[in-house]
Amino acid sequence: MSKGITSKNDDYSQWYNDIVIKADLAEHSSVKGCMVIKPYGYSIWEKMQAVLDHKFKETGHSNAYFPLFIPKSYFSKEAAHVEGFATECAVVTHYRLKNDGNGNIVVDETAKLEEELIVRPTSETIIWNTYRGWIESYRDLPLLINQWANVVRWEMRTRLFLRTTEFLWQEGHTAHATSQEAVEETERMLDVYADFAENFMAVPVVKGKKTPTERFAGALDTYCIEALMQDGKALQAGTSHFLGQNFAKAFDVKFTSKEGKLEHVWATSWGVSTRLIGALIMAHSDDAGLVLPPKLAPIQVVIVPIYKGEEDLAKISTFVDVLMLKLKAMGISVKYDSRDSQRPGFKFAEYELKGVPIRLAIGGRDMENKTVELARRDTREKFTVPQEGLDIYIANLLNEIQENIYNKAYQFREEHITEANSYEEFKALLDDKTGFISAHWDGTAETEKQIKEETKATIRCIPLNNKQEDGVCIKTGKPSTQRVLFARAY
Amino acid sequence: MSKGITSKNDDYSQWYNDIVIKADLAEHSSVKGCMVIKPYGYSIWEKMQAVLDHKFKETGHSNAYFPLFIPKSYFSKEAAHVEGFATECAVVTHYRLKNDGNGNIVVDETAKLEEELIVRPTSETIIWNTYRGWIESYRDLPLLINQWANVVRWEMRTRLFLRTTEFLWQEGHTAHATSQEAVEETERMLDVYADFAENFMAVPVVKGKKTPTERFAGALDTYCIEALMQDGKALQAGTSHFLGQNFAKAFDVKFTSKEGKLEHVWATSWGVSTRLIGALIMAHSDDAGLVLPPKLAPIQVVIVPIYKGEEDLAKISTFVDVLMLKLKAMGISVKYDSRDSQRPGFKFAEYELKGVPIRLAIGGRDMENKTVELARRDTREKFTVPQEGLDIYIANLLNEIQENIYNKAYQFREEHITEANSYEEFKALLDDKTGFISAHWDGTAETEKQIKEETKATIRCIPLNNKQEDGVCIKTGKPSTQRVLFARAY
Repeated sequence: MSKGITSKNDDYSQWYNDIVIKADLAEHSSVKGCMVIKPYGYSIWEKMQAVLDHKFKETGHSNAYFPLFIPKSYFSKEAAHVEGFATECAVVTHYRLKNDGNGNIVVDETAKLEEELIVRPTSETIIWNTYRGWIESYRDLPLLINQWANVVRWEMRTRLFLRTTEFLWQEGHTAHATSQEAVEETERMLDVYADFAENFMAVPVVKGKKTPTERFAGALDTYCIEALMQDGKALQAGTSHFLGQNFAKAFDVKFTSKEGKLEHVWATSWGVSTRLIGALIMAHSDDAGLVLPPKLAPIQVVIVPIYKGEEDLAKISTFVDVLMLKLKAMGISVKYDSRDSQRPGFKFAEYELKGVPIRLAIGGRDMENKTVELARRDTREKFTVPQEGLDIYIANLLNEIQENIYNKAYQFREEHITEANSYEEFKALLDDKTGFISAHWDGTAETEKQIKEETKATIRCIPLNNKQEDGVCIKTGKPSTQRVLFARAY
Repeated sequence: MSKGITSKNDDYSQWYNDIVIKADLAEHSSVKGCMVIKPYGYSIWEKMQAVLDHKFKETGHSNAYFPLFIPKSYFSKEAAHVEGFATECAVVTHYRLKNDGNGNIVVDETAKLEEELIVRPTSETIIWNTYRGWIESYRDLPLLINQWANVVRWEMRTRLFLRTTEFLWQEGHTAHATSQEAVEETERMLDVYADFAENFMAVPVVKGKKTPTERFAGALDTYCIEALMQDGKALQAGTSHFLGQNFAKAFDVKFTSKEGKLEHVWATSWGVSTRLIGALIMAHSDDAGLVLPPKLAPIQVVIVPIYKGEEDLAKISTFVDVLMLKLKAMGISVKYDSRDSQRPGFKFAEYELKGVPIRLAIGGRDMENKTVELARRDTREKFTVPQEGLDIYIANLLNEIQENIYNKAYQFREEHITEANSYEEFKALLDDKTGFISAHWDGTAETEKQIKEETKATIRCIPLNNKQEDGVCIKTGKPSTQRVLFARAY
């Protein structure tokens, strides 16, 4: 069966799109820039949500829900924030439609809002306006809240999962008594994201800080995790912001300290989105389709019977039923596909396309030999395995696959961080799509901008605990004390 | 401690509002008609979601996600639907703000949408427009999909949880090959809702069908579950719609049947919302605050130590640590409140207000006697219980409380269904706030409308498996073959 997937060496962008569509993850909707997340894609998001939600709760956070709409004037209250977000957004101006008498449904001009409402692009403003009523004393702090929600940022050029007008995300918004506590929270949540990316998504990440130019609009410091895709482009997989007292001042949120002083509160915010599904696809998949790490695979094991008649099938099914009970008891998600409307070869191709980590095929001869045929999605190896102890074998193999997928991505990433010591070298590396480039930069926004304009490469981050070394900026030759990570990015 | 809750006999509406605010469930936001769901309120919603989501998956449904925005023209495609929903809705007309040069943020008139977008009030139109691409053959059916989402219906008069401009809900949208299968699905999901209301919310419900007037805009039949609140008013707690082929025809969704014929698909949709939290509050709570059924209580057991010094506390805590491990192992959520900033009496009042089903208080004398003091929230009884076997005692008591709360609500409901045999009797019963009124109706929309205008009572439903009996309409005296359930409603 031809799956109709473009080879990633021929056209990486088309390869990505083919996988999203053919593996039934998502599609463009008829509403410009908005996607439909299909059941299989959404089930990956549910897996991600479950893990992250557990981690947020473990670190003391509670979920809450704030309004979708934000009054226009709120955006003006934090100067940097409005520049960053108010420009491209969905504006609600009316609250009624009517029939114009000729059978057309039109906007009712008599139902115009006094103040326009913005569909939230992010919720700092509405949340800090609410926190003013929740915080009085140091006893109310820290306030540790997360929201799972949809947000809208008007995008002209969209790509499924990676950049869409509407997307799903979580946004944490916390309030603290001191700057230090807020910084600790910012770093704690960055670690949560890094742990999730590496140990669940199997995607190695570099933890770092953004340059002032790349900071979140309204933040004093933006921390990020940066991942590398197979085409050598970087992808920002999560951000955690130290907001200082900017929003507390803009929305007048003060607390009485233990010492009885009235002070502004310190803030953080942090978020990851359905963009992570894009990262997951691009980090591991191949020309045969999706490759999913077992910990986020909606189906971890699929079993396909190969049979000639009903009697044959009955024997296989009896064995499978017991195996499935054992696997489920270990928390392994398993599917038995005994449909008679499709041939085994078709099913093999389908589950390969969908990235199911382990496929078992069981035929009459396997039943006689007390074996099964097992295929690994990550290595595409097939081998024969005894039925005895199969449940334990599978549980161990899932761990091994998880590890292997991570190691492969880690090795790729390590091979794709290159040092450049001149601008010529830097540009040549970019042309070769070699991934992250570690280079000296003079620390000015101007140089950063020039490099971006000339090469489309941006500073992805200044890695945390970065090695200090004397050098000269690749662009200006001015002195520099550390290398930073450049790349072209999604 | 005065909790500042209005007595429900004095002012039921204010009592409800006081509980929502004082128990920290939700508050009005600064955006007209939109609420903020606070962490404690949201945690009840999470409990509800978990149970419902499991039930949906058990019955074969998958989650997916469709766009927030719906092009205006989609609403015109199903005639009844546009009348029902397009009138009061949030309309997005622009996609950019700009600085007007004087420091004001204004709508950028050059960024006007060609076609306005409606913030979804419900998603039938956008979903059926999408299903057209997903359904070709009978093999693609049934298509069983659910969405968890926010929706917006512009409301002039709002009440926390019960009626808000934005609310959270789930909406199931299914496609079937035959009318019969779609009707079966409609009824199956009604049963899921009824089971959830009765066995988790502890709220008895009447299952029935709406009259044509009260049907969902675009449905051939609307099934509902109707609950009775303590003030004698009814509350529609969930609906399940048989949509026939209306949306399939409006959006041209056809399939090739097994017999090779091209036919329109049959549809259902069904939903429950954060309104259920309002029902939960109103069905069980009292003047001391919220009463939560254990199965939906975020905290099922709270433990308050009564101690004089650190040594005292250490002894109690050692016992509590072991107890908590045992309770958690049984899946019971338990909180130990050993804060020294608040006195036990304050804590007692707080957890009573928040509806925690079981409260344990443990002091020095209890430790000597190997007992604890246990208080039930539902009956407000206190008694002394031996420490030995306490975990099993608590597990059993939680079940008993769940049952008791249901039985109390059931008894109340049974005592508040009254037959009326004349219009005078009917009106007198309404004035006495006696709950559901079972009465004969001539079956016409005109009579239904007159009764509603004159008494504010509506036909809540025609109960399923309704007893057939000859009678005469209370309003017109015309012949009738069955009684229907009337009530004033939320």
